[in-house]
Amino acid sequence: MATQPTPADKFSFGLWTVGWPARDPFGDATRADLDPVEAVHRLAELGAYGITFHDDDLIPFGADAAARDHHVGRFRKALDETGLVVPMVTTNLFTHPVFKDGGFTSNDRDVRRFALRKVLRNIDLAAELGAKTFVMWGGREGAEYDVAKDIRAALDRYREAVNLLAGYVLDRGYDIRFAIEPKPNEPRGDILLPTVGHALAFINELEHPELVGLNPEVGHEQMAGLNYAHGIAQALWAGKLFHLDLNGQRGIKYDQDLVFGHGDLLNAFALVDLLENGGPDGGPAYDGPRHFDYKPSRTEDFAGVWASAAANMRTYLLLKERAAAFRADPEVRQALAESQVGALNEPTLNPGETYTDLLADRSAYEDLDVDAVAAKGFGFVRLNQLAVEHVLGAR
Amino acid sequence: MATQPTPADKFSFGLWTVGWPARDPFGDATRADLDPVEAVHRLAELGAYGITFHDDDLIPFGADAAARDHHVGRFRKALDETGLVVPMVTTNLFTHPVFKDGGFTSNDRDVRRFALRKVLRNIDLAAELGAKTFVMWGGREGAEYDVAKDIRAALDRYREAVNLLAGYVLDRGYDIRFAIEPKPNEPRGDILLPTVGHALAFINELEHPELVGLNPEVGHEQMAGLNYAHGIAQALWAGKLFHLDLNGQRGIKYDQDLVFGHGDLLNAFALVDLLENGGPDGGPAYDGPRHFDYKPSRTEDFAGVWASAAANMRTYLLLKERAAAFRADPEVRQALAESQVGALNEPTLNPGETYTDLLADRSAYEDLDVDAVAAKGFGFVRLNQLAVEHVLGAR
Amino acid sequence: MATQPTPADKFSFGLWTVGWPARDPFGDATRADLDPVEAVHRLAELGAYGITFHDDDLIPFGADAAARDHHVGRFRKALDETGLVVPMVTTNLFTHPVFKDGGFTSNDRDVRRFALRKVLRNIDLAAELGAKTFVMWGGREGAEYDVAKDIRAALDRYREAVNLLAGYVLDRGYDIRFAIEPKPNEPRGDILLPTVGHALAFINELEHPELVGLNPEVGHEQMAGLNYAHGIAQALWAGKLFHLDLNGQRGIKYDQDLVFGHGDLLNAFALVDLLENGGPDGGPAYDGPRHFDYKPSRTEDFAGVWASAAANMRTYLLLKERAAAFRADPEVRQALAESQVGALNEPTLNPGETYTDLLADRSAYEDLDVDAVAAKGFGFVRLNQLAVEHVLGAR
Amino acid sequence: MATQPTPADKFSFGLWTVGWPARDPFGDATRADLDPVEAVHRLAELGAYGITFHDDDLIPFGADAAARDHHVGRFRKALDETGLVVPMVTTNLFTHPVFKDGGFTSNDRDVRRFALRKVLRNIDLAAELGAKTFVMWGGREGAEYDVAKDIRAALDRYREAVNLLAGYVLDRGYDIRFAIEPKPNEPRGDILLPTVGHALAFINELEHPELVGLNPEVGHEQMAGLNYAHGIAQALWAGKLFHLDLNGQRGIKYDQDLVFGHGDLLNAFALVDLLENGGPDGGPAYDGPRHFDYKPSRTEDFAGVWASAAANMRTYLLLKERAAAFRADPEVRQALAESQVGALNEPTLNPGETYTDLLADRSAYEDLDVDAVAAKGFGFVRLNQLAVEHVLGAR
Repeated sequence: MATQPTPADKFSFGLWTVGWPARDPFGDATRADLDPVEAVHRLAELGAYGITFHDDDLIPFGADAAARDHHVGRFRKALDETGLVVPMVTTNLFTHPVFKDGGFTSNDRDVRRFALRKVLRNIDLAAELGAKTFVMWGGREGAEYDVAKDIRAALDRYREAVNLLAGYVLDRGYDIRFAIEPKPNEPRGDILLPTVGHALAFINELEHPELVGLNPEVGHEQMAGLNYAHGIAQALWAGKLFHLDLNGQRGIKYDQDLVFGHGDLLNAFALVDLLENGGPDGGPAYDGPRHFDYKPSRTEDFAGVWASAAANMRTYLLLKERAAAFRADPEVRQALAESQVGALNEPTLNPGETYTDLLADRSAYEDLDVDAVAAKGFGFVRLNQLAVEHVLGAR
Repeated sequence: MATQPTPADKFSFGLWTVGWPARDPFGDATRADLDPVEAVHRLAELGAYGITFHDDDLIPFGADAAARDHHVGRFRKALDETGLVVPMVTTNLFTHPVFKDGGFTSNDRDVRRFALRKVLRNIDLAAELGAKTFVMWGGREGAEYDVAKDIRAALDRYREAVNLLAGYVLDRGYDIRFAIEPKPNEPRGDILLPTVGHALAFINELEHPELVGLNPEVGHEQMAGLNYAHGIAQALWAGKLFHLDLNGQRGIKYDQDLVFGHGDLLNAFALVDLLENGGPDGGPAYDGPRHFDYKPSRTEDFAGVWASAAANMRTYLLLKERAAAFRADPEVRQALAESQVGALNEPTLNPGETYTDLLADRSAYEDLDVDAVAAKGFGFVRLNQLAVEHVLGAR
Repeated sequence: MATQPTPADKFSFGLWTVGWPARDPFGDATRADLDPVEAVHRLAELGAYGITFHDDDLIPFGADAAARDHHVGRFRKALDETGLVVPMVTTNLFTHPVFKDGGFTSNDRDVRRFALRKVLRNIDLAAELGAKTFVMWGGREGAEYDVAKDIRAALDRYREAVNLLAGYVLDRGYDIRFAIEPKPNEPRGDILLPTVGHALAFINELEHPELVGLNPEVGHEQMAGLNYAHGIAQALWAGKLFHLDLNGQRGIKYDQDLVFGHGDLLNAFALVDLLENGGPDGGPAYDGPRHFDYKPSRTEDFAGVWASAAANMRTYLLLKERAAAFRADPEVRQALAESQVGALNEPTLNPGETYTDLLADRSAYEDLDVDAVAAKGFGFVRLNQLAVEHVLGAR
Repeated sequence: MATQPTPADKFSFGLWTVGWPARDPFGDATRADLDPVEAVHRLAELGAYGITFHDDDLIPFGADAAARDHHVGRFRKALDETGLVVPMVTTNLFTHPVFKDGGFTSNDRDVRRFALRKVLRNIDLAAELGAKTFVMWGGREGAEYDVAKDIRAALDRYREAVNLLAGYVLDRGYDIRFAIEPKPNEPRGDILLPTVGHALAFINELEHPELVGLNPEVGHEQMAGLNYAHGIAQALWAGKLFHLDLNGQRGIKYDQDLVFGHGDLLNAFALVDLLENGGPDGGPAYDGPRHFDYKPSRTEDFAGVWASAAANMRTYLLLKERAAAFRADPEVRQALAESQVGALNEPTLNPGETYTDLLADRSAYEDLDVDAVAAKGFGFVRLNQLAVEHVLGAR
């Protein structure tokens, strides 16, 4: 298997990733702004397939129509020259001070209306560029103080906003779906829809739930101490994995946005295994872009930026190789069987069995040798060790 | 307002709370077992309204029918003597070694069938004792190792189990609803349905979602660094706050089960304020039991056990007093208005307004003085300081 | 007891706190720069005693001598007009890109030498303004990647730097002591000297340990899940509490820098109780400045800034009142005695007792009724409930 | 390089690890007790070098002299038969209810005296069995409630205890050193000496600091979100790495005690690299036992126990192989040089340079082209990617 990325691998990057000037809460920018056109060309050379952006990444906030056209035009030209696509677009509702209490859920109604307008405009651009996914990260939708935000009212406003946007997309006939990106905190003390679960639950309250899914990010779930591969599995189970953000995070702390695999390597392996081998018949469980939402560390110059972009893709491909080897290893297959991992797919009830039947089945309860069942070992540690050794390339 | 609890306050306790013998992962029991009958009497004397239990708290695992009747009989007699009710019952699917890989989602199908039988039996008991809520804490439903559990299969089995149980309750005509209790980890490395959000999302995939809600626990959400009052608000928003578990937790660490208020006191205030004053017209937003699921610290003897039980109720009532004073304080009302907290209830769109109208409203976008809007302060810190001072009893 | 602050309360603020323009990793500044002269006047009006700063807060990085004198001169004039003192000065070794891999421990030796020069210059200014404490927060001294920093070499360079600076202060005869401020992470993935403990241990390896102590910050310890009051107690025990930074943090997440008391209120109470009543005969255990190192939330305008500054002081004074009442409450005294809290001050050995004596004391081991001793309850929950009720102003 | 362990690898295990009956806070034991004699034989067969124990692991609490001799005798016989050594012994001051508020720092003086006696007795046994390290994990030395423990008094008592024990060892002429094992919490809400740093600082306050070092555990530091390899480096820097506990932990949560490498694999690599290649001339930085303090998961039977024991050693050896390859890789060497990792070993001052010289060196400050220095990239991401690829066995 090749570890040199090609567009067939569907790797995509946000403009704001390689373009991050490396300003952080305690420090000024260490890199110059990056021309989006250069980003397109460099990523294409590295083997990427797509590029994504927030409106303000491409077109400065408040730009007039002429400036807007200029920026979009030269970007589109770069796309044409390189063959890169724009699979996803998203809106910046967090940088400008006007969004300091949020966009869709700011306590200030003027802000809420302005935010809706900014997003509507950006949806048109997304459609124009052929994006199929429109991500919504509500990073400012939240609060530091429990008494300062009526959470149920905020969820009402959030729903009102998404309902309006979904109606817009439907009416315009755009081939676009929305993907909500959860995050537990930072920049707000507590953010609304903090995890994959909360966002899934929210979607169920919408007018057009079929149009809205998730864009879970590795680091965001791990900032809540949650298992990212589990979150992705629940999103897949609900039919809601519309997009995803790959990066690295080293535990519960500030949002690190490291290179994919530079955080919890074993969970990254489990994720790639799930995405690539978790589908029917062992095929991919997800066929959308493998999107990297990371930040080249502030210590790096532009050589480091491009090295880091390449590192994301290479680590993904190496893990994909190891996951394939893991699945093909006869000893792994035996261990999976002994651990009864596949047996969990078998329904607990027999075909056609009702609770009445179950209640009548003495072998299930009255006659079960509970202690004998309890004594059986599951062999999970041995199975996990096989995974670790595959990750280490030692099998 | 009185801070002496009465049954009208609807305080309830688990048998396993005051009855915890204080065995922990590194230490043996420091207290003797507590007779459930004594628990009933003592809690009644302290002003409680209800008592709850796992099947095994009342009836030893594996007891025969005669022993079972004996235990239930004397418990029921104590209830009759004291007037205590049983608002909730739950099943122990975690202590016995047979559940070491879970109950509904164990990789071992025999265990899954056994678990269903144990729960079905316990539902009958719950109905018999008049419980209206049946809690399901799936503490063993999870994994330590990503490769050892097929999460989507596990969710299938979880759903299969809850669907069967819901059908049973419906067919029997029991006046019982289910409440799922999320927890992120401990005793498993990662538990399925780790947060309020994940459990809400799961419920939406069930056959009878109307019959299933949540039983969120303070410490469980805080173990993921999540805001418990926010979680409760989203549960209320979804119409799914069927029950709740009050206790205290000091941050992201092992499950502490401290007395309510002995953890994050400000969040406890926000919670009580939401429960008591967050309903229509400022009335209660939740009218079910105020259930304490805590553990009297291992350092305590039985005098300490009863002091800790009383402390839970007293702290709740003190916070209820302070929340009422907070809501009645004219300066608070003014601060809330200046922070536009209530204004978030106003829809973002005008009555009847469509996106077309919004797009045509130049005041919302083209003519909005964004910088002027951005310059307005929200006054959140002052508002929060008023809350802190009310918590401190200083206003 | 008054809750209106006066200079006798020794409250001080960093220029960078009220002057924070509220730029965060995801957003632009929401407030204009604040003139240090205005900060001095406003804080004096609010009842503060002191003001502190990083060199770059007062004098722009790279300013020439004339500009430097101008800035210092007008600042000094404001101090003279208001009576505010400068108890502490610190150096900014983190904002400028040159410090992206640290100051004293950058892998780049040119940076290390530059950092030393910047600090030496700033020590002269600190002495000139009468500061008695010179804080060193090494926020950039750290790494994201384990292979990219030789930690032992970094600690060597850190020691080399502090040794040089201590020698300088001694030779110049400055009445200045150094205070190291630990932090576990952010802006680096892992910061050197991450906790109170690590910094105390480091100090013991210095040439002049007597000249170097700590400046622990509430939020920094709590970002590692550590108990701040415990950390302060260990610093006091080691004779190393030279200064401290008060603020609020809501658990393990990004550095929040909330108002003091707006995070873990019970731990804030314990802290104030320790500082005010933990000394000999129940007097103060610490007599230095009560320094607030917080950030007025990004949602606030300047009215909110000043309200937040006042809130810090008022919460401190309210907690001081409650701590005094707690210590004076006869029921608390009885509970403390029953919990044997004071008894821990009694040595475990009798006066003059040796291990030989102890080995010969059969009552200590052979004849001890271990089960009887084990059965005694400590009454900790009741005692803590009394504390909670004092915090709530309910006693 | 071989990945089959031999005694030369100095792998050791606690009796309580393979012997853990798998009782957890929510569940009963899933495995029978393991005879220490069998543990010795099985570990020897697997290639281990040593075995360690708490007194109560070998000799039941309260056993009389005859029983004690019996247990020690048959254990010693097993050692003789297998060649396994006992490099370390430790005392259980946490399981029995008498220690519910701690051992050396219990508020109850009778407990403190009893604890000292128990430890003194165990030191004799350690000496008798030839152990060179005596570990002290003060897991119960702590508090749940800030007002219930006088931390400075507790540290006084802790010091009193260690001073007495050190004096005893010196007087008896035992060839034993003490190693303190820090832990932040669990089973107490907050434990004294919570991190490597706090314990190092404590040691400096002792009468015989030279006799006392550390026994840091992977999971314990990671439970505070701290970097274990950094902690080990600071311990080495202070000359205090007397012993260490290897295991796995997946982030900030309850103490997991997974197999080494089954948690943060990249940090495990960095640790092994430090231990094996971090010494002078690239040799080992630590030559003591590689001690595994882990728990075979509760899902396992005895086959799983022995598989998990083997997994610890194999993962260590695989990481050792990868670390050797990393250090030998010319591209890594070049990357390390470009990142100036080794350059941090060069003193910041020139040989003989004073601060006066530094102040006179215009090239260090006045004439330094700060922006040019700031513009240089450190290449850390590329370097880390090389490490990741070596971990993955991909180079």
